[in-house]
Amino acid sequence: MISETPQPPYYAVIFTSIRTEENKGYSEMADKMVELATQQDGFLGVESARNEIGITVSYWKDLESIKKWKENTDHSAARALGKSDWYQSFKTRIAKVERDYGFEK
Amino acid sequence: MISETPQPPYYAVIFTSIRTEENKGYSEMADKMVELATQQDGFLGVESARNEIGITVSYWKDLESIKKWKENTDHSAARALGKSDWYQSFKTRIAKVERDYGFEK
Repeated sequence: MISETPQPPYYAVIFTSIRTEENKGYSEMADKMVELATQQDGFLGVESARNEIGITVSYWKDLESIKKWKENTDHSAARALGKSDWYQSFKTRIAKVERDYGFEK
Repeated sequence: MISETPQPPYYAVIFTSIRTEENKGYSEMADKMVELATQQDGFLGVESARNEIGITVSYWKDLESIKKWKENTDHSAARALGKSDWYQSFKTRIAKVERDYGFEK
């Protein structure tokens, strides 16, 4: 689903990753983290796709809500497992959405 | 591939899309546009993944380079075909990357 975000400005966290071959617990944790993220203050939406690489973009009201989500205990534990088990490499980019436009048939 | 972008600030264009069932010419055009984009001034990298939705994030030096790429004749023609044939819906977000960090095993 394409996220129905409000008028800019708002923030995007672009998380691009390459997985290891270790699948144990990954899908469950990914689902759990999306569910938990949606419950956070300032969460606006999330979009995700994967084939050779995975791209997950989550949208947030402001930097403060992103910081709080990063500090969330369950999320921190999940990230530690991500580094040890599930990700070969990743890059996280924090970006301020200045403009957006869409199209729908 | 995860793009090796320079130190922030730089810009990201987050393009999220849902395809139609029309595949004719799509892959060839998508490849051609990526190739053309890489040749533009200010282009820094591109990351792409698709399953239910497609997410393509291209990275640019500044807003001026994004504007020029949008005005590129071949790119404009491709976007028109995208709207008429290949995309059910899409959303484009222009965002300024303020911070990034990565991890590699």
